[in-house]
Amino acid sequence: MKDRTRIRSLADHVGETVLLCGWVRRRRSSGSKLHFLQLDDGTGSTQVVVKKGNVPEEQLAAAGHVPFESTVIVRGEVKEDARQAGGVELAAQDFQVLNAAVAEFPIGKKEHGVGFLMDNRHIWLRSRRPQATLRIRAEIIRACRDHLDGRGFTCVDAPIFNSAAAEGTATLVPVEYFGETVYLSQTGQLHMEAAAQALGDVYCFGPTFRAEKSKTRRHLTEFWMLEPEMAFADLEESMDVMESLIAHVIERVLTNCRPELDALERDVSKLESCIPPFPRLSYTDALKQLEGTDAEIPWGEDFGAPQEDLVTTAFDRPILVHRFPTKIKAFYMRPDPAQPEVVLGCDMIAPEGYGEIIGGGERSSDLAYLEAKIAEHGLPKEAYEWYLDLRRYGANPSAGFGMGLERVVSWICDLGHIREAAPYARTMARTYP
Amino acid sequence: MKDRTRIRSLADHVGETVLLCGWVRRRRSSGSKLHFLQLDDGTGSTQVVVKKGNVPEEQLAAAGHVPFESTVIVRGEVKEDARQAGGVELAAQDFQVLNAAVAEFPIGKKEHGVGFLMDNRHIWLRSRRPQATLRIRAEIIRACRDHLDGRGFTCVDAPIFNSAAAEGTATLVPVEYFGETVYLSQTGQLHMEAAAQALGDVYCFGPTFRAEKSKTRRHLTEFWMLEPEMAFADLEESMDVMESLIAHVIERVLTNCRPELDALERDVSKLESCIPPFPRLSYTDALKQLEGTDAEIPWGEDFGAPQEDLVTTAFDRPILVHRFPTKIKAFYMRPDPAQPEVVLGCDMIAPEGYGEIIGGGERSSDLAYLEAKIAEHGLPKEAYEWYLDLRRYGANPSAGFGMGLERVVSWICDLGHIREAAPYARTMARTYP
Repeated sequence: MKDRTRIRSLADHVGETVLLCGWVRRRRSSGSKLHFLQLDDGTGSTQVVVKKGNVPEEQLAAAGHVPFESTVIVRGEVKEDARQAGGVELAAQDFQVLNAAVAEFPIGKKEHGVGFLMDNRHIWLRSRRPQATLRIRAEIIRACRDHLDGRGFTCVDAPIFNSAAAEGTATLVPVEYFGETVYLSQTGQLHMEAAAQALGDVYCFGPTFRAEKSKTRRHLTEFWMLEPEMAFADLEESMDVMESLIAHVIERVLTNCRPELDALERDVSKLESCIPPFPRLSYTDALKQLEGTDAEIPWGEDFGAPQEDLVTTAFDRPILVHRFPTKIKAFYMRPDPAQPEVVLGCDMIAPEGYGEIIGGGERSSDLAYLEAKIAEHGLPKEAYEWYLDLRRYGANPSAGFGMGLERVVSWICDLGHIREAAPYARTMARTYP
Repeated sequence: MKDRTRIRSLADHVGETVLLCGWVRRRRSSGSKLHFLQLDDGTGSTQVVVKKGNVPEEQLAAAGHVPFESTVIVRGEVKEDARQAGGVELAAQDFQVLNAAVAEFPIGKKEHGVGFLMDNRHIWLRSRRPQATLRIRAEIIRACRDHLDGRGFTCVDAPIFNSAAAEGTATLVPVEYFGETVYLSQTGQLHMEAAAQALGDVYCFGPTFRAEKSKTRRHLTEFWMLEPEMAFADLEESMDVMESLIAHVIERVLTNCRPELDALERDVSKLESCIPPFPRLSYTDALKQLEGTDAEIPWGEDFGAPQEDLVTTAFDRPILVHRFPTKIKAFYMRPDPAQPEVVLGCDMIAPEGYGEIIGGGERSSDLAYLEAKIAEHGLPKEAYEWYLDLRRYGANPSAGFGMGLERVVSWICDLGHIREAAPYARTMARTYP
């Protein structure tokens, strides 16, 4: 169908006769002589008018009873009609049903349970909300890459099969690999530190895996992570990059995805207020804000959802919480020389209760410290020898972070559950479709 | 080190005093009073001149014996020098060794075995060839995404955990997943067909996995694949997109990666000749070209490396071989209505002996045919019910293809082995570093 016109560009063809291919999504009939069909082709939606006299009788009849989601090919004239979406409609001259749906489409106007919709994700994607969400997700991906590429970063893909854990072992996914056990990547960071010693500023952006047993609205077993790493950067610089990245993403979505945000009924004022600088506060200062609330925790305990939500309520934009206790953070984080009980790390917490969207900071470049930490965490040292080499040969300050793509999509689209933020979400109970 | 200058932009600062951070890669000394150091920071390379009288005595001495790959911070004046790369050098005023390498750098000027280099991939990356290859790889990734995004495609990430195989079961990687067995993705195509029914033209670009036992220079167990899918497209249109995509990639690399191609000593004339149209011939016609050669095969057998290599020798650009025998191709391929013993599929074969870089074509939209094929291939039907739904509700012509990223990188960089085309290649025997 090389000569088909995409509905997206239909308004450029007013007065012309064009060929459209698509699916019938809705129908309104005026008796048996006039049918108004909503035709979608993935690029857009338009009204097709099938009228007695303009098409052969059997085509008129077909237009009147073709089941929804059937595939049709329509030739007709593009006419201006200010009442229609896009300002045009198609007056059909030839209406062919290519493949009629074999049964009633399972997803209708009535309310469906989440389990049913997720089981039918492959066809649920055609609905308005998933379509809009996936278009916004694609724009976010593109904005992230454009932002970093434009600043001279080089994309370096991290490996998925790994001989060791990087982030602790509780959620590792083991794989039998030609008689040995290897693990699916939880982060590309360690490999990015090596790449940064070769290429300066680098990033990876790919899927990562955690065997999350927790059934929360914030966790998936498979999620995409953007991980920039910068040789010679410090905590402050890495916070600056987090901030400019998220600001760029928000700006791009607001500029390029208005129809999608409207489809999701997103309150865009909540995004428009996300302008840098984002507030920065230390973990210790954040704890003071929690004093006397239900979310109060003793110094040294990690944030959970209640802490993240409460500490952000005072702000209309993301915040950066830095200098978490050393003992609750990953082994490679650099302790603050001024107060070694905290590390030079930072989380970005989204507003509106969407929680942590970024974690990062400075890496330790101290060989002896890292060796001690690997032992203390009970990690297999031989699997980290290569990582320690990065300190043996040219140890340098290095900083970076990991941005969870689905967390950012959830927040920007204001989704009720992170499973809607992935095209095909994977959770403990789901690997289908 | 927020006030550091990147070596990449050093020529913009002639006459200014700047701070550089980097690694000492080489040294040439003129007695004990003058040292010329090659400093790299990942963004570029420059000469640092450390001269008696310009720096304190102990810094002069340090510059004379600092081990290679040590991390240094140098403040100095940027001076024009036409003999130097980039036309500038740095006259050091302050030379600080931040971290001296603890031992001699394992990768020297002498020849190393491949096993040694791959074991040390994390530091081998700093060498000239891996650096250049990874920069070209990043440009190829960007060119692919720009090309498709610019044509209205939407990026939709395919899932990695899957309940069933898409491409046959011989190379499946099983994973124990909360008590069940699932499989790592071999292709995102089936999921893209569903996404195309929602969004029109889509693509995924992510890692895919095959438990390849073959130790060839063309196979990895983990490789990135770009998979565009277009609702309502046919074989011819999908060949057009393959062709324009690869032409765009070549053009972008030739335009933006000249220094890297030079570093690899790539014969660019072999890339410059890759201009569309690319020759298109049928499998059956290709077999005739092989008659009487060592690569001759009977009709019905699949191409291997000998066939791919021989059939391309007559051409100075990639070729498209279409209409392979139905029985050797995947179950979802659409038989040619004019001759059902072949499918409307197509492989793009690179010149210079680099073999298949793309495979694709039309998908069958015939529900009964697909049900029969799934049974014939012994695939578990219940795992494909969702895929069959795509034909039950709005079956449409659909075509697309998969481009193996590492294959394309190997060809464009003229690499001896595909393991050099990935930042951290994974083969049967390697998941480290």
